[in-house]
Amino acid sequence: MSTEANFITALRAIATSPAARGLADDAAVLDIGSSRLVLTMDAIVEGVHFLGDDPPETVAWKLVATNVSDLTAKGARPRGCLLTYPLTGDDAWDAAFLCGLDEACSHFAIPLLGGDTVHQPSGSPRNLSLTALGEPHQDVAVPSRNGAGPGDRLWVSAAIGDAGLGLALLKGELRTDHVSHDALVAAYRRPQPDPELGLALAPYVSAMMDVSDGLMIDTQRLATASEVAAVIELDQVPLSRAFLMTAGGDLGARLFAAAAGDDYCLLLAAPASSQSAILAAAAMCKASLYPIGRIMEGQGLSLLYDGEAITLPARLGFEH
Amino acid sequence: MSTEANFITALRAIATSPAARGLADDAAVLDIGSSRLVLTMDAIVEGVHFLGDDPPETVAWKLVATNVSDLTAKGARPRGCLLTYPLTGDDAWDAAFLCGLDEACSHFAIPLLGGDTVHQPSGSPRNLSLTALGEPHQDVAVPSRNGAGPGDRLWVSAAIGDAGLGLALLKGELRTDHVSHDALVAAYRRPQPDPELGLALAPYVSAMMDVSDGLMIDTQRLATASEVAAVIELDQVPLSRAFLMTAGGDLGARLFAAAAGDDYCLLLAAPASSQSAILAAAAMCKASLYPIGRIMEGQGLSLLYDGEAITLPARLGFEH
Repeated sequence: MSTEANFITALRAIATSPAARGLADDAAVLDIGSSRLVLTMDAIVEGVHFLGDDPPETVAWKLVATNVSDLTAKGARPRGCLLTYPLTGDDAWDAAFLCGLDEACSHFAIPLLGGDTVHQPSGSPRNLSLTALGEPHQDVAVPSRNGAGPGDRLWVSAAIGDAGLGLALLKGELRTDHVSHDALVAAYRRPQPDPELGLALAPYVSAMMDVSDGLMIDTQRLATASEVAAVIELDQVPLSRAFLMTAGGDLGARLFAAAAGDDYCLLLAAPASSQSAILAAAAMCKASLYPIGRIMEGQGLSLLYDGEAITLPARLGFEH
Repeated sequence: MSTEANFITALRAIATSPAARGLADDAAVLDIGSSRLVLTMDAIVEGVHFLGDDPPETVAWKLVATNVSDLTAKGARPRGCLLTYPLTGDDAWDAAFLCGLDEACSHFAIPLLGGDTVHQPSGSPRNLSLTALGEPHQDVAVPSRNGAGPGDRLWVSAAIGDAGLGLALLKGELRTDHVSHDALVAAYRRPQPDPELGLALAPYVSAMMDVSDGLMIDTQRLATASEVAAVIELDQVPLSRAFLMTAGGDLGARLFAAAAGDDYCLLLAAPASSQSAILAAAAMCKASLYPIGRIMEGQGLSLLYDGEAITLPARLGFEH
């Protein structure tokens, strides 16, 4: 087990408040007075979550978007954020970052409320930390990862794997046509969580989270938290036109997509009786939902491709 | 003007929500539903806010306490915190930090709700970031820095300068007896904000903040925010027995204390008509308040010592 996993296990022993949700959900859910609040804090690190030559504007976008994605997964409307920003002496980078921060905060309607600056040695990988808070429905349970039940269908809210291909393109590991290139790089650099969709779906789902570390590993986590088994039908996983043009749509491509991570779309489980409600909610938000599998009695993740069972690959996504 | 000052000026142009208080207060104040919330995010950096050989338990304490100090200054009861923690591969340091974190969260009754871990190169200065949220009185205005008015008295809630002497002792810049040494080092490593005192005082103050960068510079900020003049009577500034034993109580010692910073006590302005109320509130909390000066028409900070005007020193505290 990694140092990080040990550390998080030790943190869980401290974070015993029910509001912390065992540090096992996308966000904390806290009651203040008669109001409920969703809180998340996600850091992004150069070389891990973004590339050193990514435009600073897109680094700011990604920092805000990854936190907004957590709020979205809990059906919470963004209400504010606080930033810890590392100053490295690169004024041009800082100025470009602030342009992107302003753009992202406006786009997601999440006001910047405060924060702190720290000095970081020039040349060391930038660590940027954001706290975001959101307001969920006050009369509906905040969706967690642990409510999925046998018979539920699994859905995602966007094509899977684009960001992973965008990263591979930026690392020079493959090539594609210009139009696909730009779409896939944009998917990596500018995740597009949709808080309105999370709010609209929250009343009808049995479990909801965002796909950040990979569709397979995140589905496995949802199943584990819910103490059920999950099946992903790989041939049903939605792939974008840019993905298909670049990597095709065969089993290998689909396994790549389902392990790639950085999708920052919604993964949700809902009973069959809620199907029309969730589809109507998505349509109201001009969004799409794609059925990708189902929940059953048991435990663990399994994969199907054209109805045949597929052996789980060694790597399901990013572990930490 | 420093890069940091320029950066914060540019951040202010983005942080236009009234909840952000112009990034000029100790914390943000946000309404969620029918509830009011106080939010702060303070980072501490090795070599800046703590020393590389400070015990990790006390680094955790300081991280929590500095954030709780911001909540205290806004009269908010701590309700939760989120941590961004840098893993450097030093398991013993991490384990000791967690012990201190558990102790501090228990002491200040501030549950750990979530956060994130990041990997930081071994040997680079640790950056630790915490977000804290608190619940103020729902029926009383949250104290700001900008409400002081002519005729108000200025008060602090603890002896000034101990932490600054503690730092000087740790850096080997001076010596003292063992008892004083331990008390002063503890003041540097283990700030003792008192949220109950902040809550009790909030209804009666015209302005309140914490003393973190130095009594003089923080008083100047309060005066500037309130568009008034402030006078500190240096001979009235409370000094601890350990401070007096180590540095004496002459003008030079008092100027050192008033520029030292890291006090993490309250600085408040209150009209004469509230004097008995604030003293009663402090007594209820078994705390003391010390009158250190007054607010007048005009602008800027001035100093008195035994009734004589003293030239402002070049350095009033930590600028950033």
